[in-house]
Formats: sequence, C-alpha cells, structure tokens
Amino acid sequence: MKLIRFGRPGQEKPGIEINETRLDCSAFGEDWNEQFLGSNGIDRLKTWLESNIDKLETIDQSQRLGPPITRPSKIICVGLNYSLHAKESGMPLPEVPILFMKATSSLCGPNDPIIIPKNSTKTDWEVELAVVIGKKASYVEKVNAMDHVAGYCLHNDVSERDFQLHHGGQWVKGKSADHFAPLGPYLVTKDEIPDPHNLRLWLDVNGEKMQDSNTSDLVFDIPTLISYISQYMTLLPGDIISTGTPSGVGLGLKPPRYLKDGDVVELGIDGLGNAKQVAMDYGHFRSMFD
Amino acid sequence: MKLIRFGRPGQEKPGIEINETRLDCSAFGEDWNEQFLGSNGIDRLKTWLESNIDKLETIDQSQRLGPPITRPSKIICVGLNYSLHAKESGMPLPEVPILFMKATSSLCGPNDPIIIPKNSTKTDWEVELAVVIGKKASYVEKVNAMDHVAGYCLHNDVSERDFQLHHGGQWVKGKSADHFAPLGPYLVTKDEIPDPHNLRLWLDVNGEKMQDSNTSDLVFDIPTLISYISQYMTLLPGDIISTGTPSGVGLGLKPPRYLKDGDVVELGIDGLGNAKQVAMDYGHFRSMFD
Repeated sequence: MKLIRFGRPGQEKPGIEINETRLDCSAFGEDWNEQFLGSNGIDRLKTWLESNIDKLETIDQSQRLGPPITRPSKIICVGLNYSLHAKESGMPLPEVPILFMKATSSLCGPNDPIIIPKNSTKTDWEVELAVVIGKKASYVEKVNAMDHVAGYCLHNDVSERDFQLHHGGQWVKGKSADHFAPLGPYLVTKDEIPDPHNLRLWLDVNGEKMQDSNTSDLVFDIPTLISYISQYMTLLPGDIISTGTPSGVGLGLKPPRYLKDGDVVELGIDGLGNAKQVAMDYGHFRSMFD
Repeated sequence: MKLIRFGRPGQEKPGIEINETRLDCSAFGEDWNEQFLGSNGIDRLKTWLESNIDKLETIDQSQRLGPPITRPSKIICVGLNYSLHAKESGMPLPEVPILFMKATSSLCGPNDPIIIPKNSTKTDWEVELAVVIGKKASYVEKVNAMDHVAGYCLHNDVSERDFQLHHGGQWVKGKSADHFAPLGPYLVTKDEIPDPHNLRLWLDVNGEKMQDSNTSDLVFDIPTLISYISQYMTLLPGDIISTGTPSGVGLGLKPPRYLKDGDVVELGIDGLGNAKQVAMDYGHFRSMFD
C-alpha cells in the first residue's frame, strides 16, 4: 500500500495511491501519524478499504502532496553510510553508525521547493532511503529489527555544508532549516518492498545525473541500524531513520557545486517513486507570500 | 503562573500550582502543548481562571508530576555555555553557541527515576535552565527574541559520557536515552521571572553539592541563543532550549564520578522549583513493571 497526504501545508488530508490513482481517505477518520502507525493502523486501513474503497473520491493529480506522515517525534540520520560517499567526504569508513538529528520542522512535501536559507552558499542534495518505524523499538535485537518497520520513503536530506561543518560543533545546524527534509511522494508499506537492500537510488540536478547507486552498498543495513539506534534511544512509531546518501553530492565534486535559485532537483528510488524540487532563495520563497 | 501536568506517564492531565496548591485544569479542555502555547493559551487560561478557579479540584501532593508540557517538536541543547564548565570539560570557550539535540522521547517527569541505560558506566548530571518557546521563531533579531519565550523550566540534561564522546560521531547518542530529560516541576511563565539571567542553579548528589552557579554566568544569554538558533531552524511553540550546564558535572571531577543505582539527585533553580531523581539501573527499573 502507498500512503499519501495531500492538500495545503499544515492542512493535509490522508489518502492512498493505487495504480497511479490517488484516493481521499479522510473518511477513515485518522491521519497517518504515530497514533495510527502504533495501533496497527496499516492493517486496520486495509480492512476498512475492502468495504469502502469504491466510495472514495479521486484526488486530482495536480493537488500538492505533503509529507506522507505527519511530523514524527524524531528524524535520525545516518552519516557516511555508503563507502564511496565517505571517501568523497574525505572521511574514513565508520566503524559504527554515525548518527545525527534533523529538526522535524524541516519536513515538507516531496515536490515543495528546497529553500536555500539566508546566508547559505553551500546548500547540497542527498538522496536517501528513509525507513519509517511502525512499532516502538528499545534495545531491539538485529534478528527482530524488521518487525519494527512500517515502510519506506524517498527522502532528500538537504544539507548546508558550511552550517554543518564550519559553524562550530555539531552537524544539526546544517541539517535543520525549513524544507530541508522533502519526504515522499508516499510511504510504501514494508510488504511491497521485499528487499530494501537492493533498490536503485538516484538524483539529478538540472537533468544531469549526480547520484546513482543502490542500497546494496549500504555500510550498515537496516536491521543493524534499528538495533544500534535502539540501544541509545527509543524509536517511536512514525520516527524516521534516513539511512545515508551515496556518493555524488555537491560537496564531493571537484570543484564543489551547490544549489542556486532555479536549480531543479529530481530524485527517485525503485518502488518508492520520484520527486522534483526547485531550489529557491529564501527571499524569493518569502516573496511568493507577500 | 505555574503550569503542571500530573498523573500516570502518558496519561497526564493539565493543572496549575498556586501558593503550593495544585489544581486540576482538565475542565479548560486543552493540554499544555504546541497548540495551546501557539494560540495565546497562557493568556486564555488566565482569563478562564478568573471565573473558574474556585471550582477546580485540588490535586493531592503525592500525585506524580509529568513534564509540564507535552512532547515538543524538539529539544535543543547548548553545549559549554558556562565558562567554568567548558574548562572542566577540557574544551575551549566556544565562539558561537554549540548546539545539539536530545530525542524528545527522553522527556520525563521532574521526580521520575533517572534510568541508567544498559551498558552505561558514565551517566552524568547537568542542571540547566530550559527556555520554552511560546511563539514561532524564524530569523528573529536579538532585540525581539524575548517575545518568543513562553516561560522557563528546571531541566536535568542527563548525559552518558561514553555514548556522547567515544561512540563515534555526534553527541546525540549520549543525550537521548529514556528519562534523560527530567523536566519541571512546572513551567513558570515569563512574567514571573523578571530577570532570567540572575538565577541561582544548583544540583546535589546524595546531599553533596556538586553544581552551584548562577545564570548570570551564561556565555551566550537567552536572546542571543534564540536569535542564533532561529537562523538555522524554525523554533515552534513548546520547543525547549536547554541553555547549558555550569561546572560541577561528574565528568569534570578528579577522578570523574558517575551515577550508580540508588544515587539521589536533587536540583533546583531560583523561582523554578526543585526536583528529586533517584538513579536506577535499567534492569532495576524494568523489574518494577514485571
């Protein structure tokens, strides 16, 4: 199943996408959130659809998509989790997963603009496979870890390299601006992705292929990440683990290259859909609302 | 005004404390959360109390207190923000605020046990003044920053030093275990604390004074922190900025000293109340529910 949320920012309604048709699931009476995922919501929704799907309204494809789940308790990202990306970043391959957080206020829809923050000169792209937690996870063994997965999303872990690396201290400063976490188009439930460790993922800037890899190259796989993270904190339903980006980010190019107003970013992962984001200076973005 | 939340974990009800009497505010119909704070809730509550306070039930003092606000979108902590603490940590005084995040799943009530995580040998204490945001803040000027404050809380930024400093990468690993963020007893609204930069804060372990300082020693004051953070991410109502700890943490002692099962931590800040937390091994804590 593919869960979507559609409508204006902050007022999204829940829906599903089936055979490229989008259906409004407002009548189900729940949003796609922690409460829904943590109370066996995906199974309940499936059962409900059996007797209700014919009554659902079709959503026009032109409607904006929001992030496919509401704001989770946390977004945990994994650094340097593809070997070639570690190399291009000039960092050694990590011995354990490198974790950092992204403010959940950075979440936005899959096709919303990437806002280049004020004072930014190094806003960069990172296509990533995001895992959405379906069941509370604390001190989970690797062998049981996949029981805690609800599904997967396409994620662009947008990053400001100066803020991240040269503004003192921790990476979170360069990961948390508004619209730095375009998520979706949809949350694809786990049953539809039999092998999440063999998915092509790619990202283009202005039609030029910048990233093109496969999740088979992950240094730490999904069960390892869930088990590892759950030793340090409790994962809640809806929490997002963004599993790291492959090589080909702007920082790794010679010379480095960063997003500028008007650049078009397109990205996709096998089975998880595509997204298209236009980079926009902060002032340009704000002027659209004046 | 002093806002509290009371009752069993996850089922807390909203209340207030006036002249050491606790009153149940469930009849107000809102919890103390982002929605409440972001819609002028403190003023609305004051008005409502004028005609309803006499009808409110008194809460027994033995009732458990939860965190005085529900889970916020984020907890942002400031590192090395007291000069003596930077020195004891062996770090230079920062030129800009050092920011890191704490998982919001670590929040607990002010007198709940501090759970020493599995595999921890270095669980440490950090008394801190926490600022609670009352109004969305993005690119805020220092001169207007205090307009975005709802109030203040006492916070123990519990930290596992091995996880934080020696497990690879970012500090978040050592800051995010369950019960690593005891908050409260109450959220004291801004009007009751005319000068948040002149508050004594202290912490005892087993009756021995470990930390004893004053917020006048903050390296970066509250308006500076709010303005600075808001350049990197949007602060939402309910978000917590924990402003850093003074010297006297276990890591800084010679030899270092860390919490063990049964240790009693007491802490307080002028005007923001006191809290008392018993440290408990993870297995000990879990056994209470078996």
